[in-house]
Amino acid sequence: MADHIVKAYDKELEGLGQKIAEMGGIAEKMLADAMDALGDFDVQLANQTIATDPRLDMLQREIEEQAILTIARRQPLAVDLREIIATIRISNDLERVGDLAKNIAKRAIKIAGDVRIPRAIIGLKSMQESAAILLKDVLDSYAERDIARAREVWTYDADLDSLEDSVFRDLLTFMMEDPRNISFCAHLLFCSKNIERIGDHATNIAETVVYLVSGETMPTDRPKGRSILSDPPAVK
Amino acid sequence: MADHIVKAYDKELEGLGQKIAEMGGIAEKMLADAMDALGDFDVQLANQTIATDPRLDMLQREIEEQAILTIARRQPLAVDLREIIATIRISNDLERVGDLAKNIAKRAIKIAGDVRIPRAIIGLKSMQESAAILLKDVLDSYAERDIARAREVWTYDADLDSLEDSVFRDLLTFMMEDPRNISFCAHLLFCSKNIERIGDHATNIAETVVYLVSGETMPTDRPKGRSILSDPPAVK
Repeated sequence: MADHIVKAYDKELEGLGQKIAEMGGIAEKMLADAMDALGDFDVQLANQTIATDPRLDMLQREIEEQAILTIARRQPLAVDLREIIATIRISNDLERVGDLAKNIAKRAIKIAGDVRIPRAIIGLKSMQESAAILLKDVLDSYAERDIARAREVWTYDADLDSLEDSVFRDLLTFMMEDPRNISFCAHLLFCSKNIERIGDHATNIAETVVYLVSGETMPTDRPKGRSILSDPPAVK
Repeated sequence: MADHIVKAYDKELEGLGQKIAEMGGIAEKMLADAMDALGDFDVQLANQTIATDPRLDMLQREIEEQAILTIARRQPLAVDLREIIATIRISNDLERVGDLAKNIAKRAIKIAGDVRIPRAIIGLKSMQESAAILLKDVLDSYAERDIARAREVWTYDADLDSLEDSVFRDLLTFMMEDPRNISFCAHLLFCSKNIERIGDHATNIAETVVYLVSGETMPTDRPKGRSILSDPPAVK
């Protein structure tokens, strides 16, 4: 490619990377704010969190569109193609993280007028801390193209899943202790599931980072094997 | 484009469409089977449903890879580009529908040894019927490029959301009646949420069909406005 085309192309990739970073920052803040709103019964903060979500949706659409136009324009080969595909996949996951945080914020509004069982929220707070670390680590692993760090995220997500099991049992216990706790705790069950799924999206991103750097698909529920995109595609 | 290239290109598009149809069939069956497993406490059927999911994941990956290679090879313009992007988006949604059905199947296994409250499952069955119609309608609207039908799906999803609200209240009532119902009904709460989210994915697909045919983005939580891909992209 001529020099000026290479530069324009690098600029397009850089623009996509910046948008991913912006999405990551928004998603992290939405999770923190939604959980603060839940813990503090803060309806105003919950509404603010919900109002942030369209920005994340817009960024995801922009990334998808720009990524696909870049593929159509530049016909990139293996590594560059993976770079662009990775931005599409990661933006999808971050958009979903925002949705899940928004769901928690919506629950925060629903339970604000209910009985309050602060001890029921303690387990959720631990889950949030784990999920926030997973998100931070996986976004760093993407920024630094650090496979080892990405693989750690994969492993730590299992801890979050165990934590969710324990929160599930605790919430059921609170429900059984007093029927007046049932509605409040039912909403918290969903919040706990939302956080657990945020961890799943962090591991999806970890998988994408491994794919991006190595061309390999990580073993999961999905069938194993190398992606056909790991070999240079036969362009034209 | 030369004639033989056009033919190869049409064949690629056709192949993508066939894979979407296959995914749709699998996703529909997984939902029906998962709910039968739940209603009949049938662990074997639940396990079969779970075992189907990797096939759906594999199809989604194949569609994504083939779609992106087609974009890189053929540099398609507006309508054709939307056609390919639509297959990526729809395959993502159908893969998620499969995940949600799998989640229901997993719950069916968890509650198989629990107390059984058949009347608690009645509401879920109604939800499943609605979701199955939504899925069928939206897949037909995609096959026939039928915008009017796609827009109906959009509207009917609101009914499924109301049904979920009512199921949520009923399940809470069963929990309050007898603490021994709590664990069983807590699992059903998640199943009901899974079905409601299958409806959301059907509306996502409806939105994609409208985008595919008209180039327009439907008004949602997302910021309004035409997609930049609705205009012919400046290729090269």
